[in-house]
Amino acid sequence: MHNKNIRVHSDEVTKATYDALERRHVKIEDIAEIVFTMQSPYNEGLTIEHCIQSVVRVLNKREVQHAVLVGIELDELAEKRLLSAPLQAIIEADEGLFGVDETLALGSVFTYGSIAVTTFGHLDKQKIGIIEKLDTKAGESVNTFLDDLVGSIAACAASRLAHRMRDLEEEGGTFADIPPVDLGPNPKPNTDI
Amino acid sequence: MHNKNIRVHSDEVTKATYDALERRHVKIEDIAEIVFTMQSPYNEGLTIEHCIQSVVRVLNKREVQHAVLVGIELDELAEKRLLSAPLQAIIEADEGLFGVDETLALGSVFTYGSIAVTTFGHLDKQKIGIIEKLDTKAGESVNTFLDDLVGSIAACAASRLAHRMRDLEEEGGTFADIPPVDLGPNPKPNTDI
Amino acid sequence: MHNKNIRVHSDEVTKATYDALERRHVKIEDIAEIVFTMQSPYNEGLTIEHCIQSVVRVLNKREVQHAVLVGIELDELAEKRLLSAPLQAIIEADEGLFGVDETLALGSVFTYGSIAVTTFGHLDKQKIGIIEKLDTKAGESVNTFLDDLVGSIAACAASRLAHRMRDLEEEGGTFADIPPVDLGPNPKPNTDI
Amino acid sequence: MHNKNIRVHSDEVTKATYDALERRHVKIEDIAEIVFTMQSPYNEGLTIEHCIQSVVRVLNKREVQHAVLVGIELDELAEKRLLSAPLQAIIEADEGLFGVDETLALGSVFTYGSIAVTTFGHLDKQKIGIIEKLDTKAGESVNTFLDDLVGSIAACAASRLAHRMRDLEEEGGTFADIPPVDLGPNPKPNTDI
Repeated sequence: MHNKNIRVHSDEVTKATYDALERRHVKIEDIAEIVFTMQSPYNEGLTIEHCIQSVVRVLNKREVQHAVLVGIELDELAEKRLLSAPLQAIIEADEGLFGVDETLALGSVFTYGSIAVTTFGHLDKQKIGIIEKLDTKAGESVNTFLDDLVGSIAACAASRLAHRMRDLEEEGGTFADIPPVDLGPNPKPNTDI
Repeated sequence: MHNKNIRVHSDEVTKATYDALERRHVKIEDIAEIVFTMQSPYNEGLTIEHCIQSVVRVLNKREVQHAVLVGIELDELAEKRLLSAPLQAIIEADEGLFGVDETLALGSVFTYGSIAVTTFGHLDKQKIGIIEKLDTKAGESVNTFLDDLVGSIAACAASRLAHRMRDLEEEGGTFADIPPVDLGPNPKPNTDI
Repeated sequence: MHNKNIRVHSDEVTKATYDALERRHVKIEDIAEIVFTMQSPYNEGLTIEHCIQSVVRVLNKREVQHAVLVGIELDELAEKRLLSAPLQAIIEADEGLFGVDETLALGSVFTYGSIAVTTFGHLDKQKIGIIEKLDTKAGESVNTFLDDLVGSIAACAASRLAHRMRDLEEEGGTFADIPPVDLGPNPKPNTDI
Repeated sequence: MHNKNIRVHSDEVTKATYDALERRHVKIEDIAEIVFTMQSPYNEGLTIEHCIQSVVRVLNKREVQHAVLVGIELDELAEKRLLSAPLQAIIEADEGLFGVDETLALGSVFTYGSIAVTTFGHLDKQKIGIIEKLDTKAGESVNTFLDDLVGSIAACAASRLAHRMRDLEEEGGTFADIPPVDLGPNPKPNTDI
């Protein structure tokens, strides 16, 4: 059944990624706030708008989109109790030694270098902002994968800003000198890999 | 719904892992044959039985078991067309740029060192033995995750043997000197991490 | 000049690893204290002696030993100003975006699973115990690689304990029930990969 | 001695990277040829010039440059017998289980996604083109790190082309439609991370 000819267009994948995050009540601004908390002490002139553009750029990457779609799918299937045993119980309980949630998130994190990896590890323990809310969510919600995915996106966006800051310093500038949109995605998808 | 108190016993997870592989028609011997093909040119005295024991040891590891359970679950859900769009189409088509299948498999591979990573990459391109069969399976089967998982387990088992061979050489021995069961799992689970 | 026949015995590599750490004033107890700080809140009955044994086990692994030898070599060469420009200046300055120090340390961390990766990231930002001292060391010392290596070893040892704790819970026990030496290395090197 | 204020300009690091490769007799064209061999069967209209531009883009990345500088430094120090024992003997012998050479190379490979990781593993076993020459070089040369670095750069450049091809297909085009320079680096360094 390998229908290699039937391909999903990247615009459709991008839309599905944004839809999935919205359905799980995660706003781009929520992720951008984590990025701002992490980076503003080191990056002069950084605004929340720069962070939003950096998050949008990360979310434009194919590898990140696929991870988000798979992780949220598994959370939602667990919530509806549609997974088979014992996976259903393991994901529902968000066991500390499960590991697949971190592995999935790390796939994207690696694409932003070792700085992104350490930032992701830090967020995994500190649980800043929306990550904290997702981790402790009451009731029927399962966010086993989502909290790691949000940490992953924030770590990637923060790493991009750290690298960009270094370039700005060499040019004698700060983030105050660049319009936020310059940090956003290129007009063409995936040219920035 | 984080039922942190309801924990799945590791024996149950181990059993589910073996059941899932059997359900997908992958035998331990099939994986061991890939390991034998990879390692026998370099490892004097190596038998298929040594390879079987090494595969069993790898399959005893928590990180590996969780990856197998998640990957096969996704393959089976895709086969039953129970995933949401566009993920259903992406996994069904086994797109080369999907990446999540390799990421999931790499999580286990990393735990056996950089030699395991390069072996996994090689198997991903060469598709030896059962991996070839899984990749080209006709009809209604979806094995998008399974072929990478099998490559991952084989790469881990091969890496274990390469490290053990090095120790044997120092002691002036070969695999002919050691009973295969010595390469198998410890009596207690996960003491070998 | 690939003298593939002249091989260094693993005992010699192990000894060189311990010598290098001692020469750089890092004691096994220092690393064990980081592990204890990280794990004691979650692991009932855990003692510093358990942590020491876990660190010793990690330091027995070939992949870890090679990383320690390469990292300390580069720190010492930088200290003696024997590296070529511009690498000398980059390593001396311990630039945040250098990345090779984290990459080298992550190689070992990966072998202990995704929990070790997040723990490493946390230690990289929090700089507990000896890591803090290494990072701020005054005078002529260069510890660009060493602080990451120490974090890596501590993260690996902590991950081992977390996995072992999980097994103890299943058996109805705690660390109070097991003698620390049980967490130390096997009599034969590298059988635990 | 953490002279955090004395920073090396990125132009200087870029120049040192190109100088180091030239000093070790690795031409950009050599790496591009590996990329062409890997990708031309799948990428219609692909020319060697596209591959050269993709290699140049990869070599513009900070994480890649740092890995190249460290790896070549260690090869050259080993060649001059300036490393301490037993590291000198381990690197000289290019031992299969050393692992640090692959770990260093993998740091860059990860930044191009899981496709790059499997391609790198394949090149590590197959040793295409210049990699083969480096691996078997007679006389006094030590290329323990260099062959992995070249494989890493080629894997990254090939992964970039595979992702770009996918976008071209969506737009109804092939590589024949795009000028090679479009695959080269952006005018500003590191904006493409």
